[in-house]
Amino acid sequence: MTPHPEPGTVDRASATGTKVRLACRSGAIAGCTAGMADGYVQGNLAVFPERIADDFRLYAERNPKSCPIIGESRPGRRDIPELGLDLDVATDIPMYRVWRGGELVDERPDATSIWRDDLVAFVIGCSFSFEAAMLEAGLPLRHVERGTHVAMYRTSIACAPAGPFAGPMVVSMRPLTPAQAIEAVQVTGRYPRVHGAPVHLARPDLIGIEDLQRVDDGDPVPVGPDEISVFWACGVTPHSVIAAARPDFAITHAPGCMLVTDRLNTDFATD
Amino acid sequence: MTPHPEPGTVDRASATGTKVRLACRSGAIAGCTAGMADGYVQGNLAVFPERIADDFRLYAERNPKSCPIIGESRPGRRDIPELGLDLDVATDIPMYRVWRGGELVDERPDATSIWRDDLVAFVIGCSFSFEAAMLEAGLPLRHVERGTHVAMYRTSIACAPAGPFAGPMVVSMRPLTPAQAIEAVQVTGRYPRVHGAPVHLARPDLIGIEDLQRVDDGDPVPVGPDEISVFWACGVTPHSVIAAARPDFAITHAPGCMLVTDRLNTDFATD
Repeated sequence: MTPHPEPGTVDRASATGTKVRLACRSGAIAGCTAGMADGYVQGNLAVFPERIADDFRLYAERNPKSCPIIGESRPGRRDIPELGLDLDVATDIPMYRVWRGGELVDERPDATSIWRDDLVAFVIGCSFSFEAAMLEAGLPLRHVERGTHVAMYRTSIACAPAGPFAGPMVVSMRPLTPAQAIEAVQVTGRYPRVHGAPVHLARPDLIGIEDLQRVDDGDPVPVGPDEISVFWACGVTPHSVIAAARPDFAITHAPGCMLVTDRLNTDFATD
Repeated sequence: MTPHPEPGTVDRASATGTKVRLACRSGAIAGCTAGMADGYVQGNLAVFPERIADDFRLYAERNPKSCPIIGESRPGRRDIPELGLDLDVATDIPMYRVWRGGELVDERPDATSIWRDDLVAFVIGCSFSFEAAMLEAGLPLRHVERGTHVAMYRTSIACAPAGPFAGPMVVSMRPLTPAQAIEAVQVTGRYPRVHGAPVHLARPDLIGIEDLQRVDDGDPVPVGPDEISVFWACGVTPHSVIAAARPDFAITHAPGCMLVTDRLNTDFATD
């Protein structure tokens, strides 16, 4: 994880979404946005040429737990008014990834110079929102306690395909006691637009995970003797799908470097 | 399970709560009420002398998952208007159990001749309500498919004591796949007044259950290779508590022979 540059005058945890976006735009923030703008929804970014945007939208609609779309730009536009008034998807993320033919070819802090008139930006709900709800309910998050990235795994669960978009679901894992897992299902189930309830628990072998210590992304965490593994659909799924779909061109956020919006997590709860 | 007597003219699944109660009162129904009066709440019965009724109420309030009280009589009264207009707790249950000093001393189809002016009747929510919601959601119930009683176990989970009332939580177990278990948590979590969400899952060893095939009550069911065990707090818990508290006198329903009320299961859902 890139260390944060000098924090300047902004207390980032209590900052608004707008303030964090402007700090990203100016280059003052260049790394992970975890813990910033408490209470505000953060999103994953996936940008495709208009030609395949309909296929991606359909793919997302068919896989709402992995790819819950919370905002979308009009072709060529860099604003998404429903997520924030002063919002530019080409500048407001700390770090972008650029993909050509399914290969990661570049990481850069600004996407202005590679933006095109035919691009459509999709913003996808992110686990930071339901993690905030879990912490508020008193549930532990081991990767947060350890200051690491959440453990992620490619599974044997196939996503429903659409056009060139197909591939396995990627999940994130959080260890919990059985009683905590039951509470976590209820807490995160109230946030269907940010992945919602877990997709699996207790039996990693049933979804193709042989060894929890061998992660496909993020960092492994220990699972205690009185704990079970609990798995949520992960917004990184589109990244693995890009590798499979091999679109000519795509832009995503770099892991952990999210788009901070003006929407509140509480807006996304169903009760 | 006592076989049902001749069904007479009443289709018991589609009968109202009142009709089933009247059939119990007349002796036409003398066995298990499972599957009767579809959609109506059924309840567990626990009757104590007024002297210890306050302790039992406190015990129930401290253990709402095991003992969710849905109705209570005034001392000596046999009616509970909030559960049904023509309702007599001393006659409307197919089979009663009588306890003296914590020992089961009698089973009888009518409690009129042993009723006393100092008795208080508590009616406790029952799993039949949340099982109806599970079936409606398309979730399987193996004990229903097999026509057996649900598997029950005494656990190492201690209930919070109150006065003489203390003892371990009794749970019922239903095998489900992990994905079904997650849905079952969400479905049954909407019914907190009838036991609500599960209390445990996947790891019977952590709550003192060494062998799922050795039940303490009900009938064992197989757990498939792709399934986990899911445990709910059970309304039989007060029975095991009576054995521990050894009150001079108590009356309960016999297992499976419930009080059918005029309340609808849907009245008890939180959304």
